[in-house]
Amino acid sequence: MSHNTQKKSVIAVVGAGPGIGEAVARRFVAEGFVVALLARTEDKLQTIAQGIEADFGKSTARYYITDLRIEQQVISSFTSIRAELGPVEVLVYNAGARRVNGRSILDTTTEEFENFTKINLFGAFRSSKCVLPDMLAAKHGTIIFTGAPGSLRGMPGLSSFSPGKFGLRSLAQIITREYQSKGVHVAHLIVDGPVDGKLIGSVTRRKWEREGEEEKLNEVDVYILQPTDMAKIYWFLHTQSRSAWTQELDVRAQKETMLSKL
Amino acid sequence: MSHNTQKKSVIAVVGAGPGIGEAVARRFVAEGFVVALLARTEDKLQTIAQGIEADFGKSTARYYITDLRIEQQVISSFTSIRAELGPVEVLVYNAGARRVNGRSILDTTTEEFENFTKINLFGAFRSSKCVLPDMLAAKHGTIIFTGAPGSLRGMPGLSSFSPGKFGLRSLAQIITREYQSKGVHVAHLIVDGPVDGKLIGSVTRRKWEREGEEEKLNEVDVYILQPTDMAKIYWFLHTQSRSAWTQELDVRAQKETMLSKL
Amino acid sequence: MSHNTQKKSVIAVVGAGPGIGEAVARRFVAEGFVVALLARTEDKLQTIAQGIEADFGKSTARYYITDLRIEQQVISSFTSIRAELGPVEVLVYNAGARRVNGRSILDTTTEEFENFTKINLFGAFRSSKCVLPDMLAAKHGTIIFTGAPGSLRGMPGLSSFSPGKFGLRSLAQIITREYQSKGVHVAHLIVDGPVDGKLIGSVTRRKWEREGEEEKLNEVDVYILQPTDMAKIYWFLHTQSRSAWTQELDVRAQKETMLSKL
Amino acid sequence: MSHNTQKKSVIAVVGAGPGIGEAVARRFVAEGFVVALLARTEDKLQTIAQGIEADFGKSTARYYITDLRIEQQVISSFTSIRAELGPVEVLVYNAGARRVNGRSILDTTTEEFENFTKINLFGAFRSSKCVLPDMLAAKHGTIIFTGAPGSLRGMPGLSSFSPGKFGLRSLAQIITREYQSKGVHVAHLIVDGPVDGKLIGSVTRRKWEREGEEEKLNEVDVYILQPTDMAKIYWFLHTQSRSAWTQELDVRAQKETMLSKL
Repeated sequence: MSHNTQKKSVIAVVGAGPGIGEAVARRFVAEGFVVALLARTEDKLQTIAQGIEADFGKSTARYYITDLRIEQQVISSFTSIRAELGPVEVLVYNAGARRVNGRSILDTTTEEFENFTKINLFGAFRSSKCVLPDMLAAKHGTIIFTGAPGSLRGMPGLSSFSPGKFGLRSLAQIITREYQSKGVHVAHLIVDGPVDGKLIGSVTRRKWEREGEEEKLNEVDVYILQPTDMAKIYWFLHTQSRSAWTQELDVRAQKETMLSKL
Repeated sequence: MSHNTQKKSVIAVVGAGPGIGEAVARRFVAEGFVVALLARTEDKLQTIAQGIEADFGKSTARYYITDLRIEQQVISSFTSIRAELGPVEVLVYNAGARRVNGRSILDTTTEEFENFTKINLFGAFRSSKCVLPDMLAAKHGTIIFTGAPGSLRGMPGLSSFSPGKFGLRSLAQIITREYQSKGVHVAHLIVDGPVDGKLIGSVTRRKWEREGEEEKLNEVDVYILQPTDMAKIYWFLHTQSRSAWTQELDVRAQKETMLSKL
Repeated sequence: MSHNTQKKSVIAVVGAGPGIGEAVARRFVAEGFVVALLARTEDKLQTIAQGIEADFGKSTARYYITDLRIEQQVISSFTSIRAELGPVEVLVYNAGARRVNGRSILDTTTEEFENFTKINLFGAFRSSKCVLPDMLAAKHGTIIFTGAPGSLRGMPGLSSFSPGKFGLRSLAQIITREYQSKGVHVAHLIVDGPVDGKLIGSVTRRKWEREGEEEKLNEVDVYILQPTDMAKIYWFLHTQSRSAWTQELDVRAQKETMLSKL
Repeated sequence: MSHNTQKKSVIAVVGAGPGIGEAVARRFVAEGFVVALLARTEDKLQTIAQGIEADFGKSTARYYITDLRIEQQVISSFTSIRAELGPVEVLVYNAGARRVNGRSILDTTTEEFENFTKINLFGAFRSSKCVLPDMLAAKHGTIIFTGAPGSLRGMPGLSSFSPGKFGLRSLAQIITREYQSKGVHVAHLIVDGPVDGKLIGSVTRRKWEREGEEEKLNEVDVYILQPTDMAKIYWFLHTQSRSAWTQELDVRAQKETMLSKL
């Protein structure tokens, strides 16, 4: 990655994995942004960054290995981003972690509860603090938090996930009320359903393959959220006119049953 | 207005007044739709329809005088639309009525309560019943209801408005759960703040003119929702990919205080 | 029924059927109130009123046949109550009507939609207007609206029910904000689950009897809301100290799955 | 404190300060419970415990100095309670901490955010894990979490408070859905307004004294939540019949403006 990326607008995608994170990164890069990818696992980050550079050219993506539970690492990554790429114009906080198989509160250790809540909530607080000063100086910036049905309802088996996601929604409202009038557009996007390419979406897809569900596989986009379609929404939010900003919205595939949300 | 409009997609804008209704109509016509405008006052309808035709050509807009409180008029208008323009692909229910100066429930007559609730809620039920069969036959269609802060919170002085708006939100959720999986995209858009060109927005603008608020008048779009920016959201909702449909979202100007919503 | 009931406090129970309505009436009468029972069907009203008088003595209950959809009947009943029993201190609006078997919006007639919405919502507006003046004069009064899961979420098959219930919740909030500070305590009670003695509760009970579910029948109160337990909540709300008034609460049986609410 | 307290039912009040905590403790002790008081400051705990014992007799209250941010201290306190008083039948989690003067997210340190969130949320998770096994063994128990307007809406200046309170509400819903059917009654009580005897309530009272607001001081209970009236609600929740359990409710003084909630 080379140097004169400073002129490009910068998007930081925190929780940059395959699925929404990668698709959002690609969409913004296609629109002329340079992307900073933050996550904990170097392998995944490298694969995504290299894929973006292969498709969009050198110096379009850079990655920053970050354990979101540790404040010093978050600060360090954002300091590097600023020095290497410039001030962040768009922050997408997409990190969301939980035990895949829901366990009751008695089967969830305090360590699990705390670790996941730190990823789901604390990391967003710290990341926001890192990018807000430049956004306020520029009187311009966008922060998008990715939510889930668990942001709205405390379902059984989700104690390591849902309290942090509720908290994240609160944080989005607070930053909106504190800084929207100063030019920062904050949005909370509730993703209601599995996303293709991510764990749960892939599990569904493979199940259909095993069961020979040809019809469903032929129109998988009716059943499972497609990352590129999701990315359009993040881009739309960023480009909304300042007279008409959205603070919260949900999204699901056409054939989602919607029992989870509303 | 001439005849071979049948090939064009049809949008019906119910509650088509200056402000959001007109702007949505214009946006969809600009994208190749023909618009059916429904409201009670012929003068307003005529002005809007003529303006659209002046800008976009003959046979791009047709109006239907309709008292939304009276089922027979709603049915009659939609029957005419179908015969004259073709099946409705997009329904925007934008009618919202109330006493401008809020009065307590004791100062609100039952007649007012009933009349406004019929406009705010009953008309949406009836209009939806008119357009759903064609949407289901086509396995494709979009229904957008326009909401307000009063859709979420019962504020004092709004008894002629808010109960109907709460009901409208319920109706949006019901139609979503009944028909989204069959191809009908339903969205509830909560408009949080005055809209420029409409009554309240204009009042604010004129107040600023009287008080010489130059700064605010120079960037009125930061304070007051602009109809053309709003129309972009309706268009975005209609064009969302079927893997990623939004059911509810809000919108406000950057400097709105947001005390009303959330 | 004799005359010198004037000294007793008066509760009006609108939608007084077996189940919650009757149980609330009995509880308040047991506490020294006289009850005015309002509903459409004389048979039911008479049975309940006679039962109360049999248990609590003459002049403890009086009934008023009222079609809640028709304003003139509502006004007429409350005028009679005032003349015969005195000013109403407590209003419980418990009327809730819908098609038992949920039908989609296309299978729900406009007549059904309107009739049920008038019962679920309009009748509450009218009843509140009838009792508020005396409550304001006394600087004291309680209004309790009975809600349902359909007050919070628009589920499929509930278009004849849920929009009116959403509207009722809005109305409760409006009256609270308009009149609580003047001494009127308004509460919205969300009843989440079938109630024993009412249609749905009885259906469940009979199903268990057919299927020999001894265990469940022996502790039916763990599964199905018991009217007398519900009535305790209405009484508790009425007797809350003015420093600590509840505006909204929910209630369900211990073994309710709670998928419906939250 | 002597030994044969084992026969008494035990309530643990976490966050036991003057105001709600003390009043709840006193109410339950008056009903025959023994109370375990948990908080960080020995002085306050001692004052409250001694006051209770002075009024209700020896062995009615015992205190446990606990830093709720530190899991080992929470576990240690509950282990002692179990050994010294017996299994906990009622848990009231009343701890709520924040900066008194709201500061924006940029003026809130990460340390503040984390410390307060640990008190507001993590301590409730840990405390619940400590008491649930005995409640499940007994098929009986009550858990009440104290919420605030900040549990529902993210207001400016509340980033050290509201995300944790949102999370606490989620946790209440999760425990309800996981364990209510097994006999544990969980309730989330939203306290909307200052409480007399606590910091904010006292500030208001002193302000009125300075300003000679005689009328308000004479009926302070109309303006400010009274702890003893609040305690009635906690007791009511604990004694609700199992056929009619409340999961969430709010409470405010009669003349509260209610802008905060709903």
